[in-house]
Amino acid sequence: MGLIELSIIGISLIAILFAVFKFYSISKKDDGNEKTREIAKLIHEGAMTFLHKEYRILSIFIVIVAIILFLFVDKDPIKFRGESAVCFLIGAFFSAAAGNIGMRIATKANVRTAIASKESLNAGLKVAFSSGTVMGMSVVGLGLLGVTSLYLWIGEPNVIFSFGFGASSIALFARVGGGIYTKAADVGADLVGKVEKGIPEDDPRNPATIADNVGDNVGDVAGMGADLFESYVDSLIAAMVIGVLIIGQVKSAVILPLVLAALGIICSLIGVAFVRTGKKGHAGAALNKGVFGAAGLMAILSGFVVQWMTGSLNFYFASLAGLASGVVIGLSTEYYTSNERKPAQMIAEASKTGPATNIIEGLSVGMISTIIPVLAVCAAMGIAYHFGSLVTGTAMGGMYGIAIAAVGMLSTLGITLATDSYGPVADNAAGIAEMAGLGGEIRKRTESLDAVGNTTAAIGKGFAIGSAALTALALFISFSQVTNLQTIDINNYKVVIGLFIGGLLPFVFCALTMGAVGRAAEEMVVEVRRQFKTIKGLMEGKAKPDYKKCIDISTAAALRQMILPSLIAIVTPIVIGLWSLEAVGGLLAGTLVTGFLLAVFMANSGGAWDNAKKYIEAGHLGGKGSDPHKAAVVGDTVGDPFKDTSGPSLNILIKLISIVAIVFLPLFL
Amino acid sequence: MGLIELSIIGISLIAILFAVFKFYSISKKDDGNEKTREIAKLIHEGAMTFLHKEYRILSIFIVIVAIILFLFVDKDPIKFRGESAVCFLIGAFFSAAAGNIGMRIATKANVRTAIASKESLNAGLKVAFSSGTVMGMSVVGLGLLGVTSLYLWIGEPNVIFSFGFGASSIALFARVGGGIYTKAADVGADLVGKVEKGIPEDDPRNPATIADNVGDNVGDVAGMGADLFESYVDSLIAAMVIGVLIIGQVKSAVILPLVLAALGIICSLIGVAFVRTGKKGHAGAALNKGVFGAAGLMAILSGFVVQWMTGSLNFYFASLAGLASGVVIGLSTEYYTSNERKPAQMIAEASKTGPATNIIEGLSVGMISTIIPVLAVCAAMGIAYHFGSLVTGTAMGGMYGIAIAAVGMLSTLGITLATDSYGPVADNAAGIAEMAGLGGEIRKRTESLDAVGNTTAAIGKGFAIGSAALTALALFISFSQVTNLQTIDINNYKVVIGLFIGGLLPFVFCALTMGAVGRAAEEMVVEVRRQFKTIKGLMEGKAKPDYKKCIDISTAAALRQMILPSLIAIVTPIVIGLWSLEAVGGLLAGTLVTGFLLAVFMANSGGAWDNAKKYIEAGHLGGKGSDPHKAAVVGDTVGDPFKDTSGPSLNILIKLISIVAIVFLPLFL
Repeated sequence: MGLIELSIIGISLIAILFAVFKFYSISKKDDGNEKTREIAKLIHEGAMTFLHKEYRILSIFIVIVAIILFLFVDKDPIKFRGESAVCFLIGAFFSAAAGNIGMRIATKANVRTAIASKESLNAGLKVAFSSGTVMGMSVVGLGLLGVTSLYLWIGEPNVIFSFGFGASSIALFARVGGGIYTKAADVGADLVGKVEKGIPEDDPRNPATIADNVGDNVGDVAGMGADLFESYVDSLIAAMVIGVLIIGQVKSAVILPLVLAALGIICSLIGVAFVRTGKKGHAGAALNKGVFGAAGLMAILSGFVVQWMTGSLNFYFASLAGLASGVVIGLSTEYYTSNERKPAQMIAEASKTGPATNIIEGLSVGMISTIIPVLAVCAAMGIAYHFGSLVTGTAMGGMYGIAIAAVGMLSTLGITLATDSYGPVADNAAGIAEMAGLGGEIRKRTESLDAVGNTTAAIGKGFAIGSAALTALALFISFSQVTNLQTIDINNYKVVIGLFIGGLLPFVFCALTMGAVGRAAEEMVVEVRRQFKTIKGLMEGKAKPDYKKCIDISTAAALRQMILPSLIAIVTPIVIGLWSLEAVGGLLAGTLVTGFLLAVFMANSGGAWDNAKKYIEAGHLGGKGSDPHKAAVVGDTVGDPFKDTSGPSLNILIKLISIVAIVFLPLFL
Repeated sequence: MGLIELSIIGISLIAILFAVFKFYSISKKDDGNEKTREIAKLIHEGAMTFLHKEYRILSIFIVIVAIILFLFVDKDPIKFRGESAVCFLIGAFFSAAAGNIGMRIATKANVRTAIASKESLNAGLKVAFSSGTVMGMSVVGLGLLGVTSLYLWIGEPNVIFSFGFGASSIALFARVGGGIYTKAADVGADLVGKVEKGIPEDDPRNPATIADNVGDNVGDVAGMGADLFESYVDSLIAAMVIGVLIIGQVKSAVILPLVLAALGIICSLIGVAFVRTGKKGHAGAALNKGVFGAAGLMAILSGFVVQWMTGSLNFYFASLAGLASGVVIGLSTEYYTSNERKPAQMIAEASKTGPATNIIEGLSVGMISTIIPVLAVCAAMGIAYHFGSLVTGTAMGGMYGIAIAAVGMLSTLGITLATDSYGPVADNAAGIAEMAGLGGEIRKRTESLDAVGNTTAAIGKGFAIGSAALTALALFISFSQVTNLQTIDINNYKVVIGLFIGGLLPFVFCALTMGAVGRAAEEMVVEVRRQFKTIKGLMEGKAKPDYKKCIDISTAAALRQMILPSLIAIVTPIVIGLWSLEAVGGLLAGTLVTGFLLAVFMANSGGAWDNAKKYIEAGHLGGKGSDPHKAAVVGDTVGDPFKDTSGPSLNILIKLISIVAIVFLPLFL
């Protein structure tokens, strides 16, 4: 182990230690009075219940897959038989650990954010954002530590793909299951509480309100974290695997991705220090300072590092292209979904002629919003390929460049993920302030923290999709390199069949996940109605609802409904692979293209519907309770599974399907 | 010219003569009293106004493109300079002529169907279906005549692609413009008439009602006809072009597609004779007898023909695979959209919890409904390739087999298109019966004719999409053969960029066309409201509305809004082609896959929403006016542009983009 490797391990350990330190410092903060503590405890326990039940199903799945890997894949070992299975188990464990830490701290930080807001906006922001950094640093620390140490141990990046597969498996269940959970609770709570009973959001009389708050954590913290953990490690491994192929020309090609990741962690840690509100106290500006500070620092420092390690700036430009496309996709998401911009306002305008025109306009906005992300990814691909191929004079250098673009985009994940995870904590804090009846000033502050969280969440979603696409692209390139497929020719009818079936999968996946939300929400509606009917004094606030029952329904439905889509994602590439390897190439490309487009479309339609409603609620076009508002509520409800279940689940699908193809490859050859 | 060629020309002339004969025999039928004549005249004139204005824009476009073809493509002539330009002009003229004939007869037959229904159901059916056969036989007759005679004249199938391009240009404007026209009128008429004023569909007091009836003809007769004319001739030409490449092994490979088409015309003519209602008088069964009779006859006779011409049954099986996949796609469309089946009924059920769940369920049904069509196309492709490659022992034979599958699927178009065009005529007849206040018995009969039309329309839409996909596939194969692209390798980053942009196009196209409907409908709403407000005595039925104003609005809006999406479809492949030919390969594949999926999704979602509403209107779940019904109306309105504008327009996009790439190829080389 050289000095560089040692430094990488050291930096990943620093990230983990930072997370641990923050975890304990947040835990020690004031969690308020008996009432806030009780609500926080309910949310915390609900979240843990979901996680533990999910782990039970997951562990069965993980053990079966590990055995399959041992029996069929681990036949030609480098160190000892079983290394794929072991990498897989470690990947699953690390991802689950990061998710678990993130959920624990988020469900501690929510109440503490509310209480700290009593002091000042800045104090509240600090707690919520610190809890985000726990998640962010856990993910990058554990990710980099895992990849680096497995590489040092086994010495062959190919094998480490199983580590990525472990992470993908957790991500699959976390995103799909979490997405179903959160929207079943949300839609169920809204349809009965807001629409039928006319009580406000987060009202403690609503039996599904705790489940709703649990859902924010399950979907947006654990789901988002596992998604990006997967992208992070997959992009690193893919770049290393392709790096092996150009090591003759670029000696440091295998280690460079790890170095960039380590540098990104340092930049993120420095960026974290930038996050504080000024005198005027705008929380959004504070977060931006951190994110853009870290990205700017990375853009400067990585130039020196790449020049030093490879003797030219070419791969630096590749990495910059990735970083830039991430920013562009994030900004375009913000444009298409913000209620201060034209698209969401046009949807609001269309609500004047009723829900149908609201829906048509929302779908139209989502579809048109695919242009910029697609062109950004294409541009990053083209630029990265161009500069990469300059180094080696071959296509392989260009492909390595594309993988480095993905690494560059994800390099400052430590802080971007922190701002993402900030959102649900602020959202929960506002909910707790409402439920516990905290004072007006606190509610105003937590709501302003929450509003910022909506913007960061939108940008974070765009970033997650963009990084998933670039990562999947890098995986796709590794696939053809690992399989030695000289060409994947679209003139070959098998490749075309693969393309068609690949294009089909995202549609099927979306149909299943949307249907799952619908069915689970219906169960929730029935239960909430039952409680309002049978528990005497509930509406008057004299009796307590049975929150746990609702949590159980969401949990059970989510876990039951996630199985079919998950199986499809894993089984399809294997079945196609048994028929034709070229067809698998087509399959991956088809899923990547359609999945990326649908993911952007659904996330942005959903976000825009949400904010069109908020635009009207802010007093435009008749405001709350008007006919346009009612129409906009319909759009928002349709958008819920779009942006929080089906859309984000596609991020997982496009990566998972590639990694399954890569890992199970030995079966097909 | 041999005997075979002579027979083909003869058969195509018979089809045309048949159409002319039917045209005059329908024209001579009774068109009722002064009132029915007046309404019919308004519809007829409205339709002709649209066509003439469209032709004015089209002719500018056609002349410019012909000049470009002459200057840049016709540089290396076989007979004389300008043959591509001439083929293009003839293609455009033939397609326009078929559309014009179809529209003329449809707007004559509508009133005559209503009057004939006085006599019996069978008499009404006969008129409506006869008018469909005029359209069907004009399309196949002119199509086969054009392709065959141009081939005999020029001798090089490649050049005739310009004939297909001419047809594509007309189809583009007819489908996109027609689709916008029909839904702007429909949505506008419904939003004010049904929703705001509470008057029934087709009420003569509604100023937009004539435009709505014109729209049925513009969209479903002219649009559908031009779409299938394009598929028909493109599939023939593609098969002939690939046929040239295997002529060493299969002597009749170039002429076989024409022979199959001629045989299909004979089978269709015989099928037409089968169409009559029995004693029980079920119109749907009568139409099915004709369609399945023709298909069955074709399935038997084509075996003998292929055996005789090629010495084996292999290409027969390829053709059968195409025919079968067409039937499967049609039946799956019927399943997913019929109100007697589970999917539409589930959408109706979901309407109980409001419009949002209705929309989510409808989108989910549409997405899941893509499975069978995709697998059917993949299966047809695989089977056709397998048997084709058995003949030559090479991939080329397999590719020819795929093209033959497309020819097989479209062989009995003469009668399938007749049943499609039957729909809007029956719909119009019901509308005229309502507007003219004809007796109860007539209205009941025309409505039962109309109901059957809805089913045939749904199946026809599925068939149009399926044939577009298979035709586009055949065009795609011709593209790589014509360009001599040995491989279109997805490992090449340019191909991947092409795939992404190709996948993007259908989304952009849909967003633009949906937005266009929204904007045009809004103009219509404003005008209809204005008339109700300013024309005194309109609501009381004492004054007449200004129907023409509404027709003008729909016409102008449709023609204005179709320009941008049309330009995108034509310019994109050229721009990409100037950069990289491989990227164009990716582009075509990406558009084909995403376009096909979106087309099926949108057509089926739209159809299912429509029928979910009808299911409730039939008395289920509270019936008309209930809350579930209101929710279902929202879904139906969203579904209108889905199934009648954006979805069908994609059929054109996936074919047009391929043919533009093929025709403008000389520019890129």
